[in-house]
Amino acid sequence: MTPEVQVMLNTLWVVTAAILVFFMQAGFALVESGIVRAKNAINVIMKNYCDMCVGALGFWAVGYGLMFGVSSSGWYGTTKFAVNNAEPFEFSLLFFQMMFAATAATIVSGALAERIRFNAYLVGSFLITTLIYPVFGSWAWNDNGWLKQLGFIDFAGSTVVHMVGACCALAGLAALGPRTGRYAKDGTPRPIPGHNLPFVALGGFILWLGWFGFNAGSTTSADLSIGKIALNTHIAGAAAVVSTITLCGLLGRPVLLTTIVNGSLAGLVAITAGCAFVTPGSAILIGLIAAPIMFIGEAFLDAFKIDDAVGAIPVHGFCGVWGTFAVGIFKESGTDVRQMCIQLLGSAAAFAFVFPTAYVMYRIIGSWMQLRVSSIDEQRGLDFAEHGEVGYPEFQEGLLHGGTASTGAAPTVPRPAVTTTRPVVTAPVGRN
Amino acid sequence: MTPEVQVMLNTLWVVTAAILVFFMQAGFALVESGIVRAKNAINVIMKNYCDMCVGALGFWAVGYGLMFGVSSSGWYGTTKFAVNNAEPFEFSLLFFQMMFAATAATIVSGALAERIRFNAYLVGSFLITTLIYPVFGSWAWNDNGWLKQLGFIDFAGSTVVHMVGACCALAGLAALGPRTGRYAKDGTPRPIPGHNLPFVALGGFILWLGWFGFNAGSTTSADLSIGKIALNTHIAGAAAVVSTITLCGLLGRPVLLTTIVNGSLAGLVAITAGCAFVTPGSAILIGLIAAPIMFIGEAFLDAFKIDDAVGAIPVHGFCGVWGTFAVGIFKESGTDVRQMCIQLLGSAAAFAFVFPTAYVMYRIIGSWMQLRVSSIDEQRGLDFAEHGEVGYPEFQEGLLHGGTASTGAAPTVPRPAVTTTRPVVTAPVGRN
Amino acid sequence: MTPEVQVMLNTLWVVTAAILVFFMQAGFALVESGIVRAKNAINVIMKNYCDMCVGALGFWAVGYGLMFGVSSSGWYGTTKFAVNNAEPFEFSLLFFQMMFAATAATIVSGALAERIRFNAYLVGSFLITTLIYPVFGSWAWNDNGWLKQLGFIDFAGSTVVHMVGACCALAGLAALGPRTGRYAKDGTPRPIPGHNLPFVALGGFILWLGWFGFNAGSTTSADLSIGKIALNTHIAGAAAVVSTITLCGLLGRPVLLTTIVNGSLAGLVAITAGCAFVTPGSAILIGLIAAPIMFIGEAFLDAFKIDDAVGAIPVHGFCGVWGTFAVGIFKESGTDVRQMCIQLLGSAAAFAFVFPTAYVMYRIIGSWMQLRVSSIDEQRGLDFAEHGEVGYPEFQEGLLHGGTASTGAAPTVPRPAVTTTRPVVTAPVGRN
Repeated sequence: MTPEVQVMLNTLWVVTAAILVFFMQAGFALVESGIVRAKNAINVIMKNYCDMCVGALGFWAVGYGLMFGVSSSGWYGTTKFAVNNAEPFEFSLLFFQMMFAATAATIVSGALAERIRFNAYLVGSFLITTLIYPVFGSWAWNDNGWLKQLGFIDFAGSTVVHMVGACCALAGLAALGPRTGRYAKDGTPRPIPGHNLPFVALGGFILWLGWFGFNAGSTTSADLSIGKIALNTHIAGAAAVVSTITLCGLLGRPVLLTTIVNGSLAGLVAITAGCAFVTPGSAILIGLIAAPIMFIGEAFLDAFKIDDAVGAIPVHGFCGVWGTFAVGIFKESGTDVRQMCIQLLGSAAAFAFVFPTAYVMYRIIGSWMQLRVSSIDEQRGLDFAEHGEVGYPEFQEGLLHGGTASTGAAPTVPRPAVTTTRPVVTAPVGRN
Repeated sequence: MTPEVQVMLNTLWVVTAAILVFFMQAGFALVESGIVRAKNAINVIMKNYCDMCVGALGFWAVGYGLMFGVSSSGWYGTTKFAVNNAEPFEFSLLFFQMMFAATAATIVSGALAERIRFNAYLVGSFLITTLIYPVFGSWAWNDNGWLKQLGFIDFAGSTVVHMVGACCALAGLAALGPRTGRYAKDGTPRPIPGHNLPFVALGGFILWLGWFGFNAGSTTSADLSIGKIALNTHIAGAAAVVSTITLCGLLGRPVLLTTIVNGSLAGLVAITAGCAFVTPGSAILIGLIAAPIMFIGEAFLDAFKIDDAVGAIPVHGFCGVWGTFAVGIFKESGTDVRQMCIQLLGSAAAFAFVFPTAYVMYRIIGSWMQLRVSSIDEQRGLDFAEHGEVGYPEFQEGLLHGGTASTGAAPTVPRPAVTTTRPVVTAPVGRN
Repeated sequence: MTPEVQVMLNTLWVVTAAILVFFMQAGFALVESGIVRAKNAINVIMKNYCDMCVGALGFWAVGYGLMFGVSSSGWYGTTKFAVNNAEPFEFSLLFFQMMFAATAATIVSGALAERIRFNAYLVGSFLITTLIYPVFGSWAWNDNGWLKQLGFIDFAGSTVVHMVGACCALAGLAALGPRTGRYAKDGTPRPIPGHNLPFVALGGFILWLGWFGFNAGSTTSADLSIGKIALNTHIAGAAAVVSTITLCGLLGRPVLLTTIVNGSLAGLVAITAGCAFVTPGSAILIGLIAAPIMFIGEAFLDAFKIDDAVGAIPVHGFCGVWGTFAVGIFKESGTDVRQMCIQLLGSAAAFAFVFPTAYVMYRIIGSWMQLRVSSIDEQRGLDFAEHGEVGYPEFQEGLLHGGTASTGAAPTVPRPAVTTTRPVVTAPVGRN
């Protein structure tokens, strides 16, 4: 194959894969919106829609250079900022990596849903995409990164993307605290059912779709291995669902839609690190084991009263570590204890860097601009409190008129103090 | 073109197409969920989500080998089970064919919706994907299959996928019977309106999208013909919609959304067998004729009181046969009566093998683990009865508290006897 | 690269891109459905679903030839009608261009929503796809088109597709007038909130996804530049969102979901003309400026009491002109005043040809078959009035029984006079 043909094939594949990864944003938005209450349905979607935008500019200007610029120290890159001129293929790569950065950042939005302020969230997301994710990413994926030099393997980002996102989410949760009413006085967690479960399932399908671009695109070239990578990705997700159903049966739990969808994501996260290096049979094992690890993660959250609204930490964090570690066990060249240690080191490094950095970041944002909405706004819902609108106005009558539907009481707090030249929720016309 | 370049191009195309076919699962899930009542909205989605998973493992372990392994008899393959090592392109093919198998199986879920038990459905779906679909598939698509040897042509599966799926659905319906209340005492069918028609339309768009991968990917190689195949696919679907609108006008019927969406699917099913062998003009004719055939299929269901909840049999069965037969009429090399006979033989063989096999299978499943939910559970809805949750808890108050919203009466039957450590539908927190 | 490899690569890319552009239809359908009231939710979706179908047949039969056939005059093509035999790649191109034509036509459906009759809309859409869009398109994109010969540059259609669609929408609005109740007696616009904002966001994500095919596919060949085009597309959309948020803050307006989504589309429309010719930095500037231009467009609509139900004209019209003009400012070879003049001429020519032609067309359709639904049907909603069904029957009880939910009054006008052999909204079975 001539280099000319090869680079054209690489371009076609990387751009196609990046487009698929882009669509994962819609998947996250739907999963997260469906899993929260109707009063917060659009606030969380808008966080997803907007974090991708502020992040794209930040990653172009700074993040890509930090992650893939020349890294003489092994700790961060120092070239390729705000790339305007480059070889054509570099733009394809930048486009692809930009979508990855957006994925890492957007994992956070679901965990912190229903109480973090819109503006504060966007500032945090901007900093994650621009600084935190790229710096750790350079350790693992920059040719000169110290973790890569050590032999750390994370093909498509079980740790680099998913676990990093989960660590940011955990830091945010530590700074924010749980939703009002999430835990009873005796500490028992109380369920908060999502308002639109079909959205959760559709989001799951879209994420799964995008994952084929995420994993098979991580070759960053047209390579014959992409068929096997896509196959491994699919059957690991499938195996995790089978394992989730089985576990629900064994534990006497109902088979809930959100559990099934999260189970599939757990398998997909777990296969992400090793999808190019294991056989399909091993991919199935990695997926089967991901489900119980997700269940352990959920028990961990409950034990420490960490109110992760969508279960992002068990899925992206716990299974991210599992998938990274599993490379050492299942890689086709044979189980390798030294590799297992390096893999654990990589995940530990991610936690040691990302969690405290993100925690300090959220604390600073909080002292600067208030991290959490007020109690009355949380009760009323962030859709109305932060945007002055609701997701389904004809089906949420109480909210429309500024009250809280559960009590019907007139609110004592006025609607958001925005001077709108185009009033939004008053005097709607002929709604029915 | 060097073989190296060719195989790389083939890999790119087949993997891309397979990803599109994957997404058809989401399309089926949305069409079926939107077309049933809200109380069954998530049960049918979960069937789609999970059948794809159990089926993927079964198809990898057994189905692919039965279908594409060496078939010395012409009746089933005997190699390529649980493929772990192979030429790289074989994995791409396996990934593509796995998505096809999932499509055949998932056609069933809509037809049987609102009364088949979740577990029983999954067992049936697993057996269809693992045994029934692959065995018939080997007759038509294995190089040594007896139908293929006879000259049977079904390019992308009007019979192999769609009609086989419809025969399984028909068998399930024969075993299950209609939904309670579907037919009045005098036998008149009573309409059961779907709860979310925008979902049906979105599902239709997604299925149409995936169909481009389904048909144009069935080259299983990068071939210049894929443009024509995609074009034929599109205009056949378009023509069927135009024909459907016209027929509604002629018959004095309202132009219903579900009729339009089913009309488009009828055209897409019909062009599936011949998309590579006909001109665009013929594709339009095939699509135009598909709509009246779908209407005939609906009349057939009503005449025999077969309660197909989504209209899968008229679309995938009747139009599957039509599309297969149409190859003999419209192929570019000229109308061929002998081919028409072979085409009919192929469809007849599918019915003769699949319908009784699937019927016996559902009977055995029924006697082993109960096929149909109880009458009270059907009344209450499968979401609550089988999963202990509902799709839109804030908008289905009655269901949330375990009652049936239409009467408001307290249910006399307790909620599902699962010991849940994480209670799901009780004491939701601050829903509004 | 051998010609054989090149044409195969071109085929793969153009077909893949066309498939992405196809999916934009679903994006438009969701944005428009979500932004209208529940009583019109499915009527607008069905317009999208069906206009694509009638348009596909018309574009195959006539439009493609008018646009890309040999154009000796420079004003329209005269060959390539109803293409049945051609070089294989021609079919790929035809497939791609058919999707573009559908996009131009479907822009209209949202603007005219909630009052145009279904049949009248389809006739208009058919004529736009078959005649109006292709004739103007031939001026700009046919090798011999007079605008192209002058040096007009519109890479992927800021003017050819988006502004042409917006001019048709404006013409339709001039013929139809505003929705009942949209303006108070003193002329103040009154908001009509959309019924399902998550659909709007999902539609925005899908449109953005499809836009990568729209812009990067407009190479109509596999070219190394597609990475840069996709990157420019993404960051222009992202910049427009950042700009929209900033403007809302500066103007003291709430950050509404529809504003954000329309802001992103504004940026995407604006980069469409120049995506292949500008640096990423310039793409960001083009996107940043698109948002205020959209705001100006909205003020223009309010000033002239033009009731564009979804904001299509500010987004596709105003930003279409801006994007076309911006090519002259930002192209990498340097700002070029002569080019800027030619660009303005192109947009002016589009307005001068399309607006009056479409206006006359809508007037003729109106006198032939009535353009607007009756006042009582508008009040009741087009779903029930035109199709005899509603989008969410279990959640719109009032509508189901033929009344208007807001008053509960029994309607004095009977339900649609269609003789249905399958009654649709009467006697639903066991809905809950």
